[in-house]
Amino acid sequence: MSGIKFVFLCLLLCAIIVGGLLKIDKLFGEHELNYSAAVDDIITYSLERRIGYKWLRELCDIGPRLSGSAQSMEAIKWAEKKFIEMGCDTVWLQPVMVPKWVRGTLEHAEIVKSKDHTNRKLSIASLGRSIGTDGKILRASVIEVKDFKSFASYTREDVEGKIVFFNEPFDKSIPGTFRAYGKAVQQRAKGAIEASKLGAVAAIVRSVTSKPDNVPHVGTMNSFPDSVKQIPGVAIGVEDAEFLSNLLVVEPDIEIGLQLDCSNLGEVLSYNVIAEVKGSELPDELIVVGGHFDSWDKGDGAHDDGAPCIQTMETLHQMIELGLKPKRTIRCVLFINEENGIRGALEYAKYAEENNEIHVAAIESDRGAFIPQGFNLEDSDEVLEEMQRWLPLLNKAKIDWIRKGGSGVDVSKIKNVTAKIGFVPDDQRYFDVHHSDNDVFESVNAREMQLGTAAITILTYLISQEGL
Amino acid sequence: MSGIKFVFLCLLLCAIIVGGLLKIDKLFGEHELNYSAAVDDIITYSLERRIGYKWLRELCDIGPRLSGSAQSMEAIKWAEKKFIEMGCDTVWLQPVMVPKWVRGTLEHAEIVKSKDHTNRKLSIASLGRSIGTDGKILRASVIEVKDFKSFASYTREDVEGKIVFFNEPFDKSIPGTFRAYGKAVQQRAKGAIEASKLGAVAAIVRSVTSKPDNVPHVGTMNSFPDSVKQIPGVAIGVEDAEFLSNLLVVEPDIEIGLQLDCSNLGEVLSYNVIAEVKGSELPDELIVVGGHFDSWDKGDGAHDDGAPCIQTMETLHQMIELGLKPKRTIRCVLFINEENGIRGALEYAKYAEENNEIHVAAIESDRGAFIPQGFNLEDSDEVLEEMQRWLPLLNKAKIDWIRKGGSGVDVSKIKNVTAKIGFVPDDQRYFDVHHSDNDVFESVNAREMQLGTAAITILTYLISQEGL
Repeated sequence: MSGIKFVFLCLLLCAIIVGGLLKIDKLFGEHELNYSAAVDDIITYSLERRIGYKWLRELCDIGPRLSGSAQSMEAIKWAEKKFIEMGCDTVWLQPVMVPKWVRGTLEHAEIVKSKDHTNRKLSIASLGRSIGTDGKILRASVIEVKDFKSFASYTREDVEGKIVFFNEPFDKSIPGTFRAYGKAVQQRAKGAIEASKLGAVAAIVRSVTSKPDNVPHVGTMNSFPDSVKQIPGVAIGVEDAEFLSNLLVVEPDIEIGLQLDCSNLGEVLSYNVIAEVKGSELPDELIVVGGHFDSWDKGDGAHDDGAPCIQTMETLHQMIELGLKPKRTIRCVLFINEENGIRGALEYAKYAEENNEIHVAAIESDRGAFIPQGFNLEDSDEVLEEMQRWLPLLNKAKIDWIRKGGSGVDVSKIKNVTAKIGFVPDDQRYFDVHHSDNDVFESVNAREMQLGTAAITILTYLISQEGL
Repeated sequence: MSGIKFVFLCLLLCAIIVGGLLKIDKLFGEHELNYSAAVDDIITYSLERRIGYKWLRELCDIGPRLSGSAQSMEAIKWAEKKFIEMGCDTVWLQPVMVPKWVRGTLEHAEIVKSKDHTNRKLSIASLGRSIGTDGKILRASVIEVKDFKSFASYTREDVEGKIVFFNEPFDKSIPGTFRAYGKAVQQRAKGAIEASKLGAVAAIVRSVTSKPDNVPHVGTMNSFPDSVKQIPGVAIGVEDAEFLSNLLVVEPDIEIGLQLDCSNLGEVLSYNVIAEVKGSELPDELIVVGGHFDSWDKGDGAHDDGAPCIQTMETLHQMIELGLKPKRTIRCVLFINEENGIRGALEYAKYAEENNEIHVAAIESDRGAFIPQGFNLEDSDEVLEEMQRWLPLLNKAKIDWIRKGGSGVDVSKIKNVTAKIGFVPDDQRYFDVHHSDNDVFESVNAREMQLGTAAITILTYLISQEGL
């Protein structure tokens, strides 16, 4: 052993001994002793009883929960009833005005001019905020855009009077699917607006999905600025996007006919559902858990965001059923209208600010109900290490890490929160189902969902007892 | 700051500085610099091209691969062809004698005596190694055993002439499903033998599964000792197990009729499929990657162990396609007969020992093709830290940890391996499909499977370049 290596090892040894004298036991398992029984109870209860999974069956039976729809109101009442039945200390509906967009009953696209493919139907679905075609068939030729960024160099001459077909694929080579989504979703959010600026009559957008089937994956378009003429926008299934792209190579002059009767019906009254288990020692210090209770009107909205909402409802239920008696108040907020307005989150944030509420933490679950992997912590460096000390406990519910990262659209709106946290389950299957008919009850695995419940409940409980 | 705290911090600082002088950069990212381009290539190729997922479609189209079956031979030839086509340096079939058990065509169980449920069919499937009922209907009353351990206290008087119904449930409250499986599978492995010792005429065993549907999950029974009379054993779907259990409470005297023509047909010739990419610098040092190529005769054997085998086939394919030129030889072994004999592994281990082969590492993939989580390392403390240094690279393919743990049934038989390693994907859905008609191509997600391929290929490549 070299001399310098010896010195290094001696110093390291001394540091460890002195560290020991300081009893830095918080670093090495004190929490495990205090909380391991409660943590085990939470996990056993979650996996054994599958309460949330049963609730998900009920919620999905109501139907999807588009903001302003009858089903969304039925679901809101269902959740309110659940909170009352479980014995929460407070349950209330917070009024929120939400935009009401409806798909209507007519949604049809087909090739109307082609050598071999006239009358060939296309698998499409209107995008949120889209206008309809006024009872007519909107008929036009098509120009394909393979890369949304490249559209910046298109001119009015290229586009005027045409349907712009945005066909940028979801980049499946990226390991993190949210990153691939963030890239490909630009064409859905902005495509129709940019196309309209150059005189296009409609936009057809390749579904932003990791699954190469023919199911259209919907979602919202950005609001058209007043200065830009509104035009219809639809999503197209990946298989038909590929078909159309190939056809355009051999027949650039095909025409497509679109008939849609979707429409924007102004604003209607809806609600955030809010419920609390009051803290026994510090009731004014709040820990919010929640997700968004609205969904798209395709499938059941099971992963997005039904099951994750229910995970946070179960957090309250378990506090009560397992007699955990949190020191701080735990509040579940089911935010309305995340998908096409974020009105629920804005209303809640306003309320919290006006009432000078103290939010110790806000935990969002809006990435599906897949196997837990970690928690993201937003803009809160100072509590990152504090929380990481709990990993041995969280690991029992399959949480392997706590990292800096985005929390979630809804909790990010709340001001003055010590820790904004996002629950991060595995993301590999999320965009197979997201915003589509694939997002049904059957796509949720009971064990994965219930381990997510356990992970969120454990973290919530630790924050309630230890603070941040 | 207290004095002792100051001393601690000073010592820690000194240690860090001295550590820096020693350039312990291996700990902090040297590997990342050397290998990050290759790692990125592996991940991109895996996710973008989905070669293995396409191969899985082909393999599943052949059918399940029970040892000694025509389909298993067809699959062996399919794999041999794939290895030749991809340009491996060596491809050979290693002869292995395997037991041939066949399910036959008659597999029927129903309630033959009951007040209200006569002729009610039961969802059953014969267990591996079971004998049939000799062309007759085996008819007997039933005794239920709710906990396999408790059967040790049963007497001949309780059991003689009866069908023993082992009904211990899979403990869904345990977060790790392999542990729950290990507990519940005892009744399947040993139930019929223990029942026969007390004069039972047959055993019906609750399916060892996390999914509460009515699909029977099969698997092998242990070999009956010569001194114990062989009796038939069947698995029953969970729903029918619950039905039967409830019925026995009100009607303890019901009788069941069983008709099975499964049988043991001695031994037949089969093969391990072996292929190599030779090492450029140390060709005599081997890294084995593999899984078991046989499956049960239910579903497609997609997760168990088709897709995992293909992940290891792709490891060789990527070495060639990506021009990675491993320093050490990488050998893929597709072991035959893991499910009901482990003959392939024993034959390979014997061959390796007789030829004094140097196995640096042996990596098994036999836990399904779900999202990667980690690697288990068996009995090799001294290389654990060495391997953990690679985590920043492996993390790109979703590997969060390397821990001590079991490798796999097949590679565990090889002697004198420096590192026996088990690939560990998420386990929450594995026993939903395991050994049943649920284990089909459609249950495998392309991205999850391909990230597993990437994780195994990265680790294999790092060992080939760095040694252990």
